[in-house]
Amino acid sequence: MARLKRLVLERLMRYYRYIVSVPEMRGAKTVTSAQIAGALDIDPTQVRKDFGAIGLLGMGRVGFGVCEVCTAIRRVLGFDERLEAVVVGAGHLGGALVAYERFTQYGLHIVAAFDSDKRKAGRRVGGLLVQPTRALTPYVRRHKIRLAILTTPPEVAQKVADRLVAAGVTAIWNFAPTRLTVPSEVMVRNEQIALGLSEISYHLAEQAREKQG
Amino acid sequence: MARLKRLVLERLMRYYRYIVSVPEMRGAKTVTSAQIAGALDIDPTQVRKDFGAIGLLGMGRVGFGVCEVCTAIRRVLGFDERLEAVVVGAGHLGGALVAYERFTQYGLHIVAAFDSDKRKAGRRVGGLLVQPTRALTPYVRRHKIRLAILTTPPEVAQKVADRLVAAGVTAIWNFAPTRLTVPSEVMVRNEQIALGLSEISYHLAEQAREKQG
Repeated sequence: MARLKRLVLERLMRYYRYIVSVPEMRGAKTVTSAQIAGALDIDPTQVRKDFGAIGLLGMGRVGFGVCEVCTAIRRVLGFDERLEAVVVGAGHLGGALVAYERFTQYGLHIVAAFDSDKRKAGRRVGGLLVQPTRALTPYVRRHKIRLAILTTPPEVAQKVADRLVAAGVTAIWNFAPTRLTVPSEVMVRNEQIALGLSEISYHLAEQAREKQG
Repeated sequence: MARLKRLVLERLMRYYRYIVSVPEMRGAKTVTSAQIAGALDIDPTQVRKDFGAIGLLGMGRVGFGVCEVCTAIRRVLGFDERLEAVVVGAGHLGGALVAYERFTQYGLHIVAAFDSDKRKAGRRVGGLLVQPTRALTPYVRRHKIRLAILTTPPEVAQKVADRLVAAGVTAIWNFAPTRLTVPSEVMVRNEQIALGLSEISYHLAEQAREKQG
């Protein structure tokens, strides 16, 4: 199977969430590409193409078997493997991610939280005891952690990333508003929450400009 | 000026953040499209095109004036207007957003937080007193709030959105993992944090599959 691109993976995630969580899908045995496409505002051809890319062939007008679709997406995206991650940066956002219960349905388990702030170490965030950053490298090595979730201030993010990579992490989910430099075999996914603000702020500014004529 | 599309707006935000926050830009008077493009891994032609779309013309090899670029982006994206928002859903994520200090540089001020959970009402999240949801409509009306940040559980998100729209909100920043139906004049920006997990989980699953041969 050819390596799937980011946008394909994100669409597969959307299809999966639609199928498992939308009320109208409850109890359904089959689903059509038109149904998914309509609900998610995506072209039906795109849906069928994405399904084809992971080996799913529809049954004509009947559509696709819900179980087959779920199983295929879970398998490709690796949701059935237990994926353990550490959070570095136990502030508000780190705590929110630790507390986000829905991650477990995708196989993600956040097993430890670290913070360089001595006042935070020893406290609990979302059920986890915050550990001091000096415990990070030994923890990642001992537990063979492959994924780290970074929610530190941007100023220290690169330094933490370097330590994580040296300790054996091969994927970083970066919520710090800065770009990271890592070896090519390490994957970084950047989440820049503030980007969304550009669209919102522009929309509201345009509204105001239109009003003023 | 033609209405700018989402991806253009997001790139403008990236350019802005690069110019105002990257150490190597400190004190710089000019910046070239090649410099920005290299740092952000974007094509230089794209950078010049985006700048052109907001009326910025370069000075040949010298590039663009840093102040002009900042001013133009801030003006187009509306960062110089004070934008007041309410957060509905005062859980971990809501608290993280309230506490996120960097929003103010984009003009965004979160002025109130609401939660339907009576145990949360009266508590403080990130400096704001959490108010009961019944106070939401009068608050939005009285303060002419145009933006609401939604961090409720997905089950109640639509109901809350309906109330917000009825109260006069014209933009919703939706962090609830569900799609919202709103009138066409209301803008919804969906942030689906879990989408990023598809890419990470796939990457790690592929790594494991490659190891197993």
